[in-house]
Amino acid sequence: MCNCVSRLSTHRAVGAGKREDQTQTDTQQKEPELVAGPSQYGSLWPLPQKVHISDVSFKLSSSNFQITDAKESSAGPSCNLLQSAYRRYYEYVFVGPKNQKRGRDQPAGPSEVTELQVWITSPDSDCDSFPTESSDESYELSVDQPVAVLKAPKVWGALHGLETFSQLVYEDEFGAKTINSTVISDFPRFAHRGVLLDSSRHFIPVKVILANLETMAMNKFNIFHWHIVDDSSFPYLSQTFPQLSEKVRNRDGYRIRYFLRYRPNSIVPTEHRFTSFETVPRFGIHVTFPPPPPNRKSNPDIQKFMEQQGFGQDFTKLESFYIQRLLDIVTTTQKGYMIWQEVFDNGVKLKPDTLIHVWKGNQQSYQREMANITSAGYRTLLSSPWYLNRIAYGQDWQAIYKADPQDFKGTDDQKKLVIGGEACLWGEFVDATNLTPRLWPRACAVAERLWSAKEVTDTNDAFNRLAVHRCRLVERGIPAQPLYTSYCPREYKGI
Amino acid sequence: MCNCVSRLSTHRAVGAGKREDQTQTDTQQKEPELVAGPSQYGSLWPLPQKVHISDVSFKLSSSNFQITDAKESSAGPSCNLLQSAYRRYYEYVFVGPKNQKRGRDQPAGPSEVTELQVWITSPDSDCDSFPTESSDESYELSVDQPVAVLKAPKVWGALHGLETFSQLVYEDEFGAKTINSTVISDFPRFAHRGVLLDSSRHFIPVKVILANLETMAMNKFNIFHWHIVDDSSFPYLSQTFPQLSEKVRNRDGYRIRYFLRYRPNSIVPTEHRFTSFETVPRFGIHVTFPPPPPNRKSNPDIQKFMEQQGFGQDFTKLESFYIQRLLDIVTTTQKGYMIWQEVFDNGVKLKPDTLIHVWKGNQQSYQREMANITSAGYRTLLSSPWYLNRIAYGQDWQAIYKADPQDFKGTDDQKKLVIGGEACLWGEFVDATNLTPRLWPRACAVAERLWSAKEVTDTNDAFNRLAVHRCRLVERGIPAQPLYTSYCPREYKGI
Repeated sequence: MCNCVSRLSTHRAVGAGKREDQTQTDTQQKEPELVAGPSQYGSLWPLPQKVHISDVSFKLSSSNFQITDAKESSAGPSCNLLQSAYRRYYEYVFVGPKNQKRGRDQPAGPSEVTELQVWITSPDSDCDSFPTESSDESYELSVDQPVAVLKAPKVWGALHGLETFSQLVYEDEFGAKTINSTVISDFPRFAHRGVLLDSSRHFIPVKVILANLETMAMNKFNIFHWHIVDDSSFPYLSQTFPQLSEKVRNRDGYRIRYFLRYRPNSIVPTEHRFTSFETVPRFGIHVTFPPPPPNRKSNPDIQKFMEQQGFGQDFTKLESFYIQRLLDIVTTTQKGYMIWQEVFDNGVKLKPDTLIHVWKGNQQSYQREMANITSAGYRTLLSSPWYLNRIAYGQDWQAIYKADPQDFKGTDDQKKLVIGGEACLWGEFVDATNLTPRLWPRACAVAERLWSAKEVTDTNDAFNRLAVHRCRLVERGIPAQPLYTSYCPREYKGI
Repeated sequence: MCNCVSRLSTHRAVGAGKREDQTQTDTQQKEPELVAGPSQYGSLWPLPQKVHISDVSFKLSSSNFQITDAKESSAGPSCNLLQSAYRRYYEYVFVGPKNQKRGRDQPAGPSEVTELQVWITSPDSDCDSFPTESSDESYELSVDQPVAVLKAPKVWGALHGLETFSQLVYEDEFGAKTINSTVISDFPRFAHRGVLLDSSRHFIPVKVILANLETMAMNKFNIFHWHIVDDSSFPYLSQTFPQLSEKVRNRDGYRIRYFLRYRPNSIVPTEHRFTSFETVPRFGIHVTFPPPPPNRKSNPDIQKFMEQQGFGQDFTKLESFYIQRLLDIVTTTQKGYMIWQEVFDNGVKLKPDTLIHVWKGNQQSYQREMANITSAGYRTLLSSPWYLNRIAYGQDWQAIYKADPQDFKGTDDQKKLVIGGEACLWGEFVDATNLTPRLWPRACAVAERLWSAKEVTDTNDAFNRLAVHRCRLVERGIPAQPLYTSYCPREYKGI
């Protein structure tokens, strides 16, 4: 099909021999050799559920192409969410040198795609809603000439389909934008596909968060888990409890929330010790196991309280007491809640619809934990293998890619309780200087695992698609780091 | 002394507990707890050999401060190298918000530094030379009011002293630029203090190389070891052997060399298989152990040649043959040479003044190698612990900082044969998207080890100085990544 060659050398450069002979990390040693070359799926990422790409190709011209609402669509010109997405994806499709070889002088031939019609099929497009866990994100895309059609029940699927359409466009040997005749039917494997960023350990400028939200959308993530505050700082302004935020300076939270409505993302903020609800359109709060106070063993008030409660010196009991109280309060608000796994481990009483976030341990222990949680009937999501703050030398995206949230011993009913996962980038060693290249393309590996079919596990094919996908992110201005020795048609221009 | 608080929390955020409970790397576990606070040496990095900072402080005003040639100086207005450095360091000193609290209306008080006089004391300032291995890089700096004096035998020391002066300036609680009465006498512990960058595995834009050369100068590095070409690509244009470079597209080599003369850096390009000399003002070529051809075991020409030479199947002999021939050729050019350690290990015949670059193995084995090399009478430099492409989670700068090139069993005469070391950032996983934050501030740890006295080993004091030094790099536009949870007065503004 298309000639989107990944252009990567996978010869393991012994080169000067200067790197490979040094003691290797385990990760590095276990990596199989990858064979670089074009994938039959071009640069699609994450891979759609059903794809058929034919050999027939069409051209696209920036002067003769538009993205429009289909006549039958339930979303029209008043749906700003879609209209701004049309503008954005037009720009993405025609990114790169403006002077395409196929210029204005050349008339549109019979083999040209001149229009992408977007057709929202459900009577309620969801254009004015926030997405929820049960939002329909599916879409169908048919690329033919002169008109390509993108059908989706709701705007959420249409946003995903626009990204997919943009990924089908490549440059032929003369630099002309080209797309093959294609039929795609697509929907996510998991409903909860998240990225956690941590603005408590380091300041993250709004523009960096926004750029990463854009990149999340390019990878079909739908949840932004914002670890706003922690012991280190409290950069959050609560309208309900303004006294919580006396030290708050960063008032950009709302701007970011506003932005989110224009992407298929939800937001799950996390706070410690304090709770608030007003920024949470979807899940209610994500209760985090609170840290033991640093001086808890010497603090006389805490000692006295523990004595009164009959906890002895068992601080686990103290922590469970705190969480239990917090969850009781949350329950009265009619909001759902997410918790980190220790709350479950410590036997705190939970509502049946509690969502439990697994983050601890190696493969064996997180798989056991997922089995235990689902066996007890709770819903769960996985992060243990996706702590992207944990960096290692080499192609660590492969281990990230291979982890699967449903790989544990359990019944089909248990597997259905797994709603997805989150890539977590904790902030101890991360700020605006290194956040974006550290997150991408490593988080892309999580994105495909959570979106694509369970059977999509060919790391070789993934490498070839991801290498080109990462160059696409770079072209769109995102400093996504390289997978391995390679070059992009248009390299990153920043420093 | 100054109130350059590092403003770092070193409380090991168990926070959500979400990171620290996961299996730690060895590196991370061995790190001692650091106590954050101001260093008595402010933010000086690398620490000068002799420093006395008094409690008496002076102000500096952007409208009433200049850097000038001392009347007695052997370098005058025609020395562009210094004049451009004066402009650069004036900017660095007054980086940040322009509206200082101490404004123009306020007359210069008695406690104000209004001038830094730069006095080159040797009759030949070296202004029009390239630096060499034996260049004098020493300087003496005396900060008093109203005039501070920087004395250096050569321009190289003056460039270092300007950087040191800029590091002494801090902001008082009102944001006014302040400097304490200070006496510094400084010189490098090692003559060869290098950074290796690799433009063969990924394209590195010229502006990224230039920004990193600037950053090298801010850390008193003096050697840029440019690994220009390798198996992966040959982005180098040889004037002597233009046919070498048929595929060359990057012609920016000369621009970069030109730049180098304006910093106290030398350049050591590395090439594989091919040699050229014209870009090497100082050391001649840095011969790298050539990679065995990938198909060497099946290549009939190579098999035939090995048979003719009586090598059997011993490819080490083939490689040594190649290197021996190469070194024989180089010897006729009256240039010195640097080699990677295998050439020595494989018993190739070497000239007595050969410089041997140690890069292999763990601490035990590289220390043994240094002992063997110096015992054989050769000069050597170290890179094994400074392969900065090898990333690990946590504060890995500490291990980088602790390594010392003279820590091996040997006589004083042997130790004198150690001329320094190089931080190496090989390019398999590095391009413009992530090069700079991956290199800085980790390479700073190497810089201090190679410049400062052997006894400067207090990681706690180093942490406090380096945290502020890192914020200074950020203020100067360099995306140096954070050491740990922290904030800078002026955070990085890019994405």
